[in-house]
Amino acid sequence: MTVSPFDHPLLSGLLGDEEAARHFSVEADIDAMLAFERALAEAEAECGVIPREAEAAIVQALAAFRPDTAKLRAGVAGDGVVVPELARQIKAAVGAPHDAYVHFGATSQDVIDTSLVLRLRQAIDHIGLLLGENVVRLTGLELEFGERQFMAMTRMQPAIPITVTDRTTSWRAPLERHQQRLAEMSGRVLALQFGGAAGTLDRLGDRAAAVRTALAGKLGLADAPQWHSQRDALAEFAGWLSLVTGSLGKFGQDVALMALTGSDVKLSGGGGSSAMPHKQNPVKAETLVALARFNAVQLPGMHQALVHEQERSGAAWTLEWLILPQMVVATAAALRLAAELAAQIESLGH
Amino acid sequence: MTVSPFDHPLLSGLLGDEEAARHFSVEADIDAMLAFERALAEAEAECGVIPREAEAAIVQALAAFRPDTAKLRAGVAGDGVVVPELARQIKAAVGAPHDAYVHFGATSQDVIDTSLVLRLRQAIDHIGLLLGENVVRLTGLELEFGERQFMAMTRMQPAIPITVTDRTTSWRAPLERHQQRLAEMSGRVLALQFGGAAGTLDRLGDRAAAVRTALAGKLGLADAPQWHSQRDALAEFAGWLSLVTGSLGKFGQDVALMALTGSDVKLSGGGGSSAMPHKQNPVKAETLVALARFNAVQLPGMHQALVHEQERSGAAWTLEWLILPQMVVATAAALRLAAELAAQIESLGH
Amino acid sequence: MTVSPFDHPLLSGLLGDEEAARHFSVEADIDAMLAFERALAEAEAECGVIPREAEAAIVQALAAFRPDTAKLRAGVAGDGVVVPELARQIKAAVGAPHDAYVHFGATSQDVIDTSLVLRLRQAIDHIGLLLGENVVRLTGLELEFGERQFMAMTRMQPAIPITVTDRTTSWRAPLERHQQRLAEMSGRVLALQFGGAAGTLDRLGDRAAAVRTALAGKLGLADAPQWHSQRDALAEFAGWLSLVTGSLGKFGQDVALMALTGSDVKLSGGGGSSAMPHKQNPVKAETLVALARFNAVQLPGMHQALVHEQERSGAAWTLEWLILPQMVVATAAALRLAAELAAQIESLGH
Amino acid sequence: MTVSPFDHPLLSGLLGDEEAARHFSVEADIDAMLAFERALAEAEAECGVIPREAEAAIVQALAAFRPDTAKLRAGVAGDGVVVPELARQIKAAVGAPHDAYVHFGATSQDVIDTSLVLRLRQAIDHIGLLLGENVVRLTGLELEFGERQFMAMTRMQPAIPITVTDRTTSWRAPLERHQQRLAEMSGRVLALQFGGAAGTLDRLGDRAAAVRTALAGKLGLADAPQWHSQRDALAEFAGWLSLVTGSLGKFGQDVALMALTGSDVKLSGGGGSSAMPHKQNPVKAETLVALARFNAVQLPGMHQALVHEQERSGAAWTLEWLILPQMVVATAAALRLAAELAAQIESLGH
Repeated sequence: MTVSPFDHPLLSGLLGDEEAARHFSVEADIDAMLAFERALAEAEAECGVIPREAEAAIVQALAAFRPDTAKLRAGVAGDGVVVPELARQIKAAVGAPHDAYVHFGATSQDVIDTSLVLRLRQAIDHIGLLLGENVVRLTGLELEFGERQFMAMTRMQPAIPITVTDRTTSWRAPLERHQQRLAEMSGRVLALQFGGAAGTLDRLGDRAAAVRTALAGKLGLADAPQWHSQRDALAEFAGWLSLVTGSLGKFGQDVALMALTGSDVKLSGGGGSSAMPHKQNPVKAETLVALARFNAVQLPGMHQALVHEQERSGAAWTLEWLILPQMVVATAAALRLAAELAAQIESLGH
Repeated sequence: MTVSPFDHPLLSGLLGDEEAARHFSVEADIDAMLAFERALAEAEAECGVIPREAEAAIVQALAAFRPDTAKLRAGVAGDGVVVPELARQIKAAVGAPHDAYVHFGATSQDVIDTSLVLRLRQAIDHIGLLLGENVVRLTGLELEFGERQFMAMTRMQPAIPITVTDRTTSWRAPLERHQQRLAEMSGRVLALQFGGAAGTLDRLGDRAAAVRTALAGKLGLADAPQWHSQRDALAEFAGWLSLVTGSLGKFGQDVALMALTGSDVKLSGGGGSSAMPHKQNPVKAETLVALARFNAVQLPGMHQALVHEQERSGAAWTLEWLILPQMVVATAAALRLAAELAAQIESLGH
Repeated sequence: MTVSPFDHPLLSGLLGDEEAARHFSVEADIDAMLAFERALAEAEAECGVIPREAEAAIVQALAAFRPDTAKLRAGVAGDGVVVPELARQIKAAVGAPHDAYVHFGATSQDVIDTSLVLRLRQAIDHIGLLLGENVVRLTGLELEFGERQFMAMTRMQPAIPITVTDRTTSWRAPLERHQQRLAEMSGRVLALQFGGAAGTLDRLGDRAAAVRTALAGKLGLADAPQWHSQRDALAEFAGWLSLVTGSLGKFGQDVALMALTGSDVKLSGGGGSSAMPHKQNPVKAETLVALARFNAVQLPGMHQALVHEQERSGAAWTLEWLILPQMVVATAAALRLAAELAAQIESLGH
Repeated sequence: MTVSPFDHPLLSGLLGDEEAARHFSVEADIDAMLAFERALAEAEAECGVIPREAEAAIVQALAAFRPDTAKLRAGVAGDGVVVPELARQIKAAVGAPHDAYVHFGATSQDVIDTSLVLRLRQAIDHIGLLLGENVVRLTGLELEFGERQFMAMTRMQPAIPITVTDRTTSWRAPLERHQQRLAEMSGRVLALQFGGAAGTLDRLGDRAAAVRTALAGKLGLADAPQWHSQRDALAEFAGWLSLVTGSLGKFGQDVALMALTGSDVKLSGGGGSSAMPHKQNPVKAETLVALARFNAVQLPGMHQALVHEQERSGAAWTLEWLILPQMVVATAAALRLAAELAAQIESLGH
């Protein structure tokens, strides 16, 4: 079952990114959800909300826990989220009398949103590295070919001569701004979600704030009030992903047009054709354009999901699940392809 | 690697549809591509374009053919399409002297687009059945509860009493129009793509038309001039998918709002909560809204891809791959969920 | 106040279409709403729902009616729709005792949706003519240059020689399919909306169907059950508009790329530059691409609006108002520009 | 000609915002373009690029300049931009011998992009004030009703009691984050565009940087290298606009749902119905949802435009013109409506 090219055994060779996709596997999701439950038990024991013995039993059970995934799947089909069934399985593994302290005071959304954020943190690390690599490679092209010239093209027509640097700057400078933007927003994105049934941590009483702070610390996330129905940081991050792929799409489009019009670029290793063996298609350049348009298409889904009604919208939340992971992987794939494309450039300008 | 919920072992229990997704598996794609190559050899032999012995050798080799998928994946990464490497493997399986007649006169896009259409035909059959089932179920609700009443709600405010039929008609009538629309467009969508390197079937000379007609007949598709850079039928079909999910989204939204406001609907088997065991969440209804918004979000991707430059756009074509299969599966999933939701309705109106 | 280029005194010279825009002026809207109210009075009198004297008084008052637009504007701000205030003004113009029969049994949505459809009918006539003109012009290019050749370009690389007709067909054939699609859907789009407060024509009793049929006949629209919360025909029509502009965007993109790469096309009268007097920019070709992408961007708005909750959604309905008129004008503008661009083509191929 | 509701004499009463729209009028655009030309002449004279006499002649001519708008419109139709014809008219007004120094070293995009940024600065001031007003009003609701209670609703079902503050926080906190985001990005957005024919300020030689710095200073904009083909700051800003309307859409949706379900909110002055005089429709709340979805729909247009090929893309640039002004006005309108809606709230909770 491989509906999405990002998951497709063949197409992901071009369109996917293994490292980014890994963070959206079931295994990674379950690992992150279990990490939440473990850290929750630890934080609640530290704050005196649950007994130390319960904490020990939960931590021990989680270390050995293997979920029944068939039942988890059925749980999602019935409940719309995996957590009720997962919590049930964990409680069964912990057993009486400590099972009552599993997932104590938390709700499904705490687990799922925090699991997402934990994995986004890793994906962001990966994407940040790829972004840096692209800046380095484009700088390398500038150092090597920057003083050469070619004809500027405005509105699809020859204008006046410019240097290669004039154009490569238009590829590199936005990426450096994207690095700055990511730094600005990452504190907003990488924040713990912890609110309990309706956001009030009602079962934790006056220890709610202390548990939240301890939990955030254990998970390495920013400590922030619950944001279960405030999805602006995720939509902002999705916008950032699409800014990145958009800038790379310009790079790809420019390279493809240079390949079309002739000698301004020399590329090694273009793609072959099944009908015309002589061809060297600028496949990676075209794919950057496709991924830029793809992320632009996805982005409004995350903004539609801002209309997240009341204290929890199943509709808006589920829509995010269908959109955001693909945007992350598309961005990582585009960054990988752009770095490869930069490496394929044997010459620029004259 | 399960970036998309449609492929996700757990989430696809809610959001996916196994029967629809099956048609987008690698296996189904390869089967359809091999069916194309076999039918092509047969059609070309019938028309005297390739020798009968070559046809026999190709058909025999294809029957036993098992692709090296690792190499196919690498081929996609390099060429942007799987066909050059697949054709190479088939030729190796056929061996000299008949290998020169494999894929004769065809190009990658012929194979990939026709494979898509062959699988869309099956997916459309499935979706058509689900659509019919929904009409039946909604008609059943009308027969059972149609003469009861509830208060019409306009602009989120009580208006005047209406019958249950007045509202169920707004769920059913669009589905019947969608059946009519599908009938109108299916001849345009389910058409063979066969054009060769640049759409002219240049290597087939004066037998081009005959081969195309024979090939279409063997594959059970409409015989039409190549449409490799004319993507309107696919965009039209994508629009139809989003019309279907949009109408189902209204059904879901209405049910969710009735569940919110009280006694107008009684549902069996709502979803459970990990924090509040008393809750019965209208999960399927909310998911219908999510899938409606998802398909609406995707649709412009297929329309952006109409700007398919020149004789073949790698960028626009690849964008379609990222969008259309998910829209098909989202539609099948929504139809499945809507039928299930209709079955959950124990009572409507008063 | 000219926020949209379609309304902008300067930019609409390029991006607008006067004939299409005319149908979305306030004057045209009010004329169509008054035509509805007049035809309603006539139909209701014919069916014995209101007295003949009331009909005469209403028809006479409407003939001389001039709305107070400042009050209409305030009415929209308060009520979200213009009709309550408009009906109030008409009733005042009719005066006692016949004013009670103004707008009898109708609701705001009947007036506004039917006014829209009446104006879409005229816009569709205009667009249909422009579409036909484009087919004629492209056929003319084929007749004049069709047997010449140029190099096919696949994936941004030279492939094999093709004839000019091979490419112009990819511009013309989709337009002919769009003509067929329009014929198929126009009966669904051009249908009267008439349902009363909540769709049941509750105040018309057993004469509801007869009034509706008479009203549809007088307005020249298809007679159909109310569709106030079933917006599929409008979304379908929006999809058609975007199919048209998408196909024209391919034409524009191809021409712009030919202008970029050299001698395959010769254009008269390109656009000038303020910095480089020597340039001849393919402005109309680029604008076709912009309008194609614009309509593709807008389309999901009409599909999001399919999730039209309950008997009337102020949110979903208002969203349509923000989207559909612009799509209509963008389509007319694109057709006008495409015809002009075809006329600018002095030579194709070699 | 009033295709867009933002320009519509009646509908803009609900959907528009006069102050924001004012900045997108022809008059405001021309004023800003003339301000650019004047400041350019001053900066170039200061830096010794043009004679002081030329500066004086240009400044004097601009003070009295009245454009021939019919010719400007024709210029846009032909050139795709207004500047070539505008520069021609200004040169004619200046007359020999100083006319050669009008628009010296600049190109159309410098004038148009900088005019946009100058007007965005004013629009941002306005939007910033409205945003602050909303924070104040929501804080006021918290102070007045914050300790009351109502039932939290999760997944469209009653959950547990929460305070009014718990919900109003979910309306207010995102707005405060939007204030922070705006502060972070405004330096990127409000930057001078000045590059000349192809971005290199080729005609200014070694005084290019000094002229640019002086020009930025005179216009009160950030001094930055030309960004004519790097559109990320505009796309980022568009994303911000959609974040704002998305958060307000949640506020509107929540209020509309409270109005639907009963007594959690009391609103003064809802909208009337033409068929049901008893109704009080939550028109402003619904309109907030419509505007949120509208901006979400528009946003990908600005991201598609990131694929801005080569040194100037007529297609991508024109697409921005069709999208961004409407997003700005939609945001201002939503902020105005949200403040009005907050003022309509007479009571929250119990």
